[in-house]
Amino acid sequence: MSTVSIPASIPSVAEDCEQLHKAFEGWGTNEALIISILAHRNAAQRKIIRETYAATYGEDLLKSLDKELSSDFERSVLLWTLDPAERDAQLAHEALRKGNVGHYVLAEIACTRSPHELFLVRQAYHARFKRSVEEDVAYSITGKERQLLVLLLTAFRYDGAEVNMNLANSEAKILHKCVSDKEYENEDLIRILTTRSKAQLSATLNHFNDQVGNPINKDLKADPNDPYLTLLRAVIKCLTCPEKYFAKVLRLAINRLGTDEEALTRVVVTRADVDMKNIKEEYYRRNSVPLDKAIRGDTSGDYERMLIALIGGEDA
Amino acid sequence: MSTVSIPASIPSVAEDCEQLHKAFEGWGTNEALIISILAHRNAAQRKIIRETYAATYGEDLLKSLDKELSSDFERSVLLWTLDPAERDAQLAHEALRKGNVGHYVLAEIACTRSPHELFLVRQAYHARFKRSVEEDVAYSITGKERQLLVLLLTAFRYDGAEVNMNLANSEAKILHKCVSDKEYENEDLIRILTTRSKAQLSATLNHFNDQVGNPINKDLKADPNDPYLTLLRAVIKCLTCPEKYFAKVLRLAINRLGTDEEALTRVVVTRADVDMKNIKEEYYRRNSVPLDKAIRGDTSGDYERMLIALIGGEDA
Repeated sequence: MSTVSIPASIPSVAEDCEQLHKAFEGWGTNEALIISILAHRNAAQRKIIRETYAATYGEDLLKSLDKELSSDFERSVLLWTLDPAERDAQLAHEALRKGNVGHYVLAEIACTRSPHELFLVRQAYHARFKRSVEEDVAYSITGKERQLLVLLLTAFRYDGAEVNMNLANSEAKILHKCVSDKEYENEDLIRILTTRSKAQLSATLNHFNDQVGNPINKDLKADPNDPYLTLLRAVIKCLTCPEKYFAKVLRLAINRLGTDEEALTRVVVTRADVDMKNIKEEYYRRNSVPLDKAIRGDTSGDYERMLIALIGGEDA
Repeated sequence: MSTVSIPASIPSVAEDCEQLHKAFEGWGTNEALIISILAHRNAAQRKIIRETYAATYGEDLLKSLDKELSSDFERSVLLWTLDPAERDAQLAHEALRKGNVGHYVLAEIACTRSPHELFLVRQAYHARFKRSVEEDVAYSITGKERQLLVLLLTAFRYDGAEVNMNLANSEAKILHKCVSDKEYENEDLIRILTTRSKAQLSATLNHFNDQVGNPINKDLKADPNDPYLTLLRAVIKCLTCPEKYFAKVLRLAINRLGTDEEALTRVVVTRADVDMKNIKEEYYRRNSVPLDKAIRGDTSGDYERMLIALIGGEDA
């Protein structure tokens, strides 16, 4: 469920564009006006605003925003304004130069978007970078993460609800054997994680839990700091309980010395109009602090106001 | 270039459907009438005919054809009438149970269709089989062919014409090192073949030829009967010179003891309205016999008439 509040009666697109253009004029920029418009329009509405703005003022809205805004606030507004598939293509491209941290971003995009959305990201990547995302991932990333990430990003999983219980049972046993033998790169383990539908995989992991007595992620903590195992656990969480994964990313971004604004912005802008309501619930359940309070405590100014507007905080 | 001849003025869809329905009535089936309609309509026209036929007569045209026709003629008409993406999904599914022979079919679909067409095949596979094609391939095929075929089928290659010549040069060297060391499963070799755009790959293989003095496929003939190497050579031909690949498949299907109707039908129905003109030219160049003559020599009856109609033979 989305946390983006869209007014019951919104101004015309032309009016929105005019207001945005006004916000850029004169001595200072009117950040509050920008937030009051963009943070309260859905992806389809933002797309039309961007098209109409370009047609009216002869400049890409993103470019105008880029000129007027700065720092974390700028990044949050720019990413939010982008079409979701273009945004993911850009995040994936940036992730290539970020080592282990980037691997999570790639896994997150591959595993928490719907199969069709992931394909749109691949199309947007073509259009923007003149290469395929798997081409760049396979070229830039080495080691055991390479194969896993390429297979995750290129998957077009079946997304129906049908589940084969016999298969779930037998593949749970395969997974158990792999983790018992510490064969974390076993090709059947990789095959199951990278090709099965999310519904089928959830059934398999439930069988695993029943057979073994604990969730697979516990067994994948054999060496808690091994980056490959950490990535595997993130993949499984992204595929089966994305709200828990994102709540944890937010917790880690906030509860550290110096906020990780990059992760905070990424999760808020990519999930606000998807499942931020569930993420907020999960965050509160796990941390006993409401997410908006946590964000307010760690951010300030227009950046804070933008994030709070997107997650549907009271002063939004 | 297509070899399917479409009359300058075609009857209305309703008329086509009525004629087809008539062809099924009475004591015998009018095969000539079926060929005269279906073999002379393009994919978009056949699609509308199929929809209109179902709406008019309450039965899928494929089902009516299935009841009335038989043997190789039936298979050629059914496959031809299917939407190209559905047809490829079906061919891919059948290929899973055919061992080495099936591997070529899968590689052919992955490598000779455009990136977008390949994605449509994956969508059609979901719709028809309630699983993803990579899921079934990874599950059914083992050994070194598995990884190669999964990566080929899941690729969404960039399809622009841009070529990076420095990259082509350096990757030609990587390929040369791999084949010199007989490391045919080297992950860089697989990466280059499965992710680079066709334009980039052609440039790389031209560099290889310049640097080494022979095409890479010569070096991949170290053991001419090794099935994995044979598959690698087919992949490279499919990606860089599909008309040569298909001309060879046709030659092998025809010039053997007992025609390989399955391969013959597959190549004719999948290429007739794509690049059959080029394949015919290549076939003649290589065999000094026109393809239609070769097909006439090896087939008969309605099956012969259907194939000849599709490849634009004189009595079509």
